[in-house]
Amino acid sequence: MEKVAVLGGGSWATAIVKILSENKSQVHWWMRNRNDVQHLISYKHNPRYLSQVSFDLNYVNPSSDIQAVLAAADWVILAVPAAFVRLALADLAEDALQGKVVVSAIKGMIPEENVLITDYVERTYQVPDSHQLVIAGPCHAEEVALEKQSYLTIGSHNMAAAEHFCELLRNRYVKANPLDDLDGIEYCAVMKNIIAMACGIARGLNYGDNFQAVLVSNAMFEIERFLDAIMPIHRDLSGSAYLGDLLVTAYSQFSRNRTFGNMIGRGYTVKSAQIEMNMVAEGYYAVQSIFELNKKLKVDMPITNAVYHVLYERIAPAVEFEILKDKFK
Amino acid sequence: MEKVAVLGGGSWATAIVKILSENKSQVHWWMRNRNDVQHLISYKHNPRYLSQVSFDLNYVNPSSDIQAVLAAADWVILAVPAAFVRLALADLAEDALQGKVVVSAIKGMIPEENVLITDYVERTYQVPDSHQLVIAGPCHAEEVALEKQSYLTIGSHNMAAAEHFCELLRNRYVKANPLDDLDGIEYCAVMKNIIAMACGIARGLNYGDNFQAVLVSNAMFEIERFLDAIMPIHRDLSGSAYLGDLLVTAYSQFSRNRTFGNMIGRGYTVKSAQIEMNMVAEGYYAVQSIFELNKKLKVDMPITNAVYHVLYERIAPAVEFEILKDKFK
Repeated sequence: MEKVAVLGGGSWATAIVKILSENKSQVHWWMRNRNDVQHLISYKHNPRYLSQVSFDLNYVNPSSDIQAVLAAADWVILAVPAAFVRLALADLAEDALQGKVVVSAIKGMIPEENVLITDYVERTYQVPDSHQLVIAGPCHAEEVALEKQSYLTIGSHNMAAAEHFCELLRNRYVKANPLDDLDGIEYCAVMKNIIAMACGIARGLNYGDNFQAVLVSNAMFEIERFLDAIMPIHRDLSGSAYLGDLLVTAYSQFSRNRTFGNMIGRGYTVKSAQIEMNMVAEGYYAVQSIFELNKKLKVDMPITNAVYHVLYERIAPAVEFEILKDKFK
Repeated sequence: MEKVAVLGGGSWATAIVKILSENKSQVHWWMRNRNDVQHLISYKHNPRYLSQVSFDLNYVNPSSDIQAVLAAADWVILAVPAAFVRLALADLAEDALQGKVVVSAIKGMIPEENVLITDYVERTYQVPDSHQLVIAGPCHAEEVALEKQSYLTIGSHNMAAAEHFCELLRNRYVKANPLDDLDGIEYCAVMKNIIAMACGIARGLNYGDNFQAVLVSNAMFEIERFLDAIMPIHRDLSGSAYLGDLLVTAYSQFSRNRTFGNMIGRGYTVKSAQIEMNMVAEGYYAVQSIFELNKKLKVDMPITNAVYHVLYERIAPAVEFEILKDKFK
């Protein structure tokens, strides 16, 4: 029986616990909020997210004691918002993740430090590349809850570990495939949230479907340029882990980043959009990290720049998109 | 003043006439139906499609006399459904298109003959490659009517002619770019309608956003394999003319092919879906042509095969998509 720790109580964490526990992995599920843990133990569902999903407590062990959760597991899945990773892991000893395989399900970067989650974990807890995986793929948690057919890609430099983890995920409605591109997948997952915000802003400004298609098309080139600058290997960017992941975020009704962008496009301030949504839109932090990183790389990134200017320099969305639309082909 | 013939009375023809005539080209607009021509002359709008668009009759000359329309023009834009091309052009002399630049705005192939429109025009009317263009790009006619920002790609082997035609199209809400890939663009435009039908079928079968993203991602590889088999040149398939065009068709509320597929997925027969929609879904014919062509090419095309089996061999959509979903990554 596989022993897996899942850190985080959000919708994606909840979906992952559902998948793993239904496959009879022993899941040790950490969430900070003790009331939520108690609710889970009493009523067998997460009160906040995907609350229609019922858990079998023979396979799911909710706890707010992160040390105990980690001690019990061989696999550790990080599924807290990127902005809270440091806080969530703050009490851990440096060797708390030694010997474990760490799987990032986070689609963002550590704010201010502007590093990928896997890089942060490697640096802070000495977890080598060979023990790191990332989960990607076009996969809204809400659709996992509904058991709609979904596809996940597990990125790693350690293909044996990736394939092993795929085995833990595969079921009637989830297909999983390993892919040898840890960093590319992770950066792409970060960038797609920026693009989804751009799509939302465009919609909020009353641009139509024709424009969104061209935006996504141009975004693919922007992502390609960035990945080629930061880690130039051959990638099939039309793959599910790249284009697929972008599409589901940019076009789906469930996308928080798109919704956030839409509100910005319609004239909400960043503050009021965040209050209204009562959720973190990962792309808000992601665009700052990528923008900062790109100060050195100097890749041509008109979409990222436009979103950054709108969110952080209070340039009017209409003005930025007027400039952006002239750059598209 | 440029003299342009537009053949066809549908929504895309109507949008093109709007763009060209607003730019003060002299447009000779042929449509078969005399009542529609009369209505246009009397009331300055097309009674059937995009009827909110008002035309300036100083620049638009509606007529049901195809010979006269062609005789008056240097550019000839074909914008009838692919299935009606032979019928529309049936009365023309073999040299009726001599010396003119022929622009296909048709996203389909000649049924039964299974040839591209440009190939048919070349073979039947001896119009050389150098005098042929195709219009592509993610561009719903309905959004042109609303003057939403749109992008067109003009494919040709004659880049000077393509750039010249782009000039006739560019305006406040339309950007146009030439691209040196006549056949690739034309085949891609045909195939995207098949993919859009597949997306509609999936939705009709209650597959979700996660699946659709994976379907489109896999479709890009299917398109790439086909184009590489039929005309192997380097293409940036993420471009607006390829991926962009596919996205707008696969995701948009305006897409006829997607709507048609959706009805099929929900259990309508082909006949009843066609009656209900009262419109030709180009993809219905396209899938037969591509399927037939591929009997020789033998490219791996699971999506095209699935759609063909559903529409032409009455295999249950649920069965075909159960097989299809196992082939996706």
